[in-house]
Amino acid sequence: MEIIMSKFKQVTIVAGTHGNEFTGIYLLRKWLKTESIIRRNSFKTTTYFANIEAYSNNKRYIEHDLNRQFLLSDLSNINLTSYEQRKAKVINEQLGPKGNSKTDLIIDLHNTTSNMGPTLILMKEDPFNTQLAAYIKIKVKNITILMEDQCSYLQHPFLCTIANQGVIVEIGPQAQSVLRHDILESMEDITCHILDFIELYNENNLPQLPKNITVFKFLDTLSLPVDEQGNICGVVHRHIQDSDFTLLKNGDPIFHLFDGNDIYWEGDDAYPHFINEAAYYDNKLAFSLANKVTIDVLF
Amino acid sequence: MEIIMSKFKQVTIVAGTHGNEFTGIYLLRKWLKTESIIRRNSFKTTTYFANIEAYSNNKRYIEHDLNRQFLLSDLSNINLTSYEQRKAKVINEQLGPKGNSKTDLIIDLHNTTSNMGPTLILMKEDPFNTQLAAYIKIKVKNITILMEDQCSYLQHPFLCTIANQGVIVEIGPQAQSVLRHDILESMEDITCHILDFIELYNENNLPQLPKNITVFKFLDTLSLPVDEQGNICGVVHRHIQDSDFTLLKNGDPIFHLFDGNDIYWEGDDAYPHFINEAAYYDNKLAFSLANKVTIDVLF
Repeated sequence: MEIIMSKFKQVTIVAGTHGNEFTGIYLLRKWLKTESIIRRNSFKTTTYFANIEAYSNNKRYIEHDLNRQFLLSDLSNINLTSYEQRKAKVINEQLGPKGNSKTDLIIDLHNTTSNMGPTLILMKEDPFNTQLAAYIKIKVKNITILMEDQCSYLQHPFLCTIANQGVIVEIGPQAQSVLRHDILESMEDITCHILDFIELYNENNLPQLPKNITVFKFLDTLSLPVDEQGNICGVVHRHIQDSDFTLLKNGDPIFHLFDGNDIYWEGDDAYPHFINEAAYYDNKLAFSLANKVTIDVLF
Repeated sequence: MEIIMSKFKQVTIVAGTHGNEFTGIYLLRKWLKTESIIRRNSFKTTTYFANIEAYSNNKRYIEHDLNRQFLLSDLSNINLTSYEQRKAKVINEQLGPKGNSKTDLIIDLHNTTSNMGPTLILMKEDPFNTQLAAYIKIKVKNITILMEDQCSYLQHPFLCTIANQGVIVEIGPQAQSVLRHDILESMEDITCHILDFIELYNENNLPQLPKNITVFKFLDTLSLPVDEQGNICGVVHRHIQDSDFTLLKNGDPIFHLFDGNDIYWEGDDAYPHFINEAAYYDNKLAFSLANKVTIDVLF
């Protein structure tokens, strides 16, 4: 039996989902002037600046994190009326609707203050996503694939999930509200390789891909230590700061408390990432953990 | 002739002058609990959280940069009524007044997103400041001394200049709204060494200091490239990104334009710093330049 893959006709590159992650925002500006960079023959590429209001205020968001507003239940809940909750409904109408979308793929461009390097975040372990991951790993030497398929695709609250396929390009470390030359080049490079992949995928012309690839699978997110009043009372330990996707072993220090004591990891081997991300202080989150696994490339 | 140095009686450690520079803010919290760390015998140490409102909003400032509001003319101008302009007047009453201050020394604790490492910023080339610089260079191996004496002390708009002596401890790189373990330790270490110096200075008990030291002297600040509409049209070149206090030579690339062209430095040898600092995008500033010079330690 041969499965006929449906072709990608509409691809949208989204930036500024978080208003202080500048790389994608400036790339969008560049591509508006030199549209040929993102144009391919077999599909239409458009761009979308998601949270201009937050950017104008030099903030991640005005009232709520826009990239957490795309649950189906929230999109249909008319009582959710903050700036981003309303904006999510507008974006869902324009680019979605989620579950039955006019957009085949959204590439959402993000920065992190964590030392994650270039990371491609995927939410489905299906032929498209695993082949994309395998292709990108060939083209971009230092890229990490982070698979966040701990829930079903539609159960994610991310903007990109309003398209039939959604991926996140996440590059760091870059401080909020800054543009780095190296990260600008890296993000443009990865975005172009994703567009190239879609072109080859549409044309049934993909190169030979490996049978399996190594990816990191999201496990859990840890909170910062807090005191009895709920105030942060410690910091991510220097032992793991900047060591995203590096093995954390039972007994390794993970937090340094302001009283001078350290807290140690008690658990199985795991790979921290999003370590000490600035945006996660709102929710007092310290870092996420992943497994390192080999998965099949599905054909 | 022997000059009798006046003793320091009142030292105030200020943090949160910028609300999203977390290190000093958390150190203040720590020192409130363990006051002995900053207590010395020969003078009184107090702490001051300068812009709680900006911190609560997770921003550098509410309306205007607080650390630019302390010109004498602005402090006496009742028409300047933004949040920080009013706050500056209150702080000047509490800790100053500038020019005739009840505070002998303010140590103002700052973070930068630039890769400046630990830097001590001084504004006077006098016996106190040069001896302090010489002492700190002995105690803190990797510290840089940045002398910003391009104008007279009282002509600076910085908060710390409302005390008779003011110094800024500036440590990076640290993204805004983040706490790094290594920088937390570095800032506490440097602050304690400054307090130790005051103690020894008061007691006329300073160790042998070198006759001269190498410092960086502020020269100028360069703007980011902008297009005809005044929009940023390029980024700090990867050649100098993260290379704070590293020699910049005539012909070195300094900016990469979005159109693909590079802009090169045309000028004398200089040392960039505050390279690509996030907070300076408001004013479209790219980096500052300094000379590297040897100055006498004054006795």
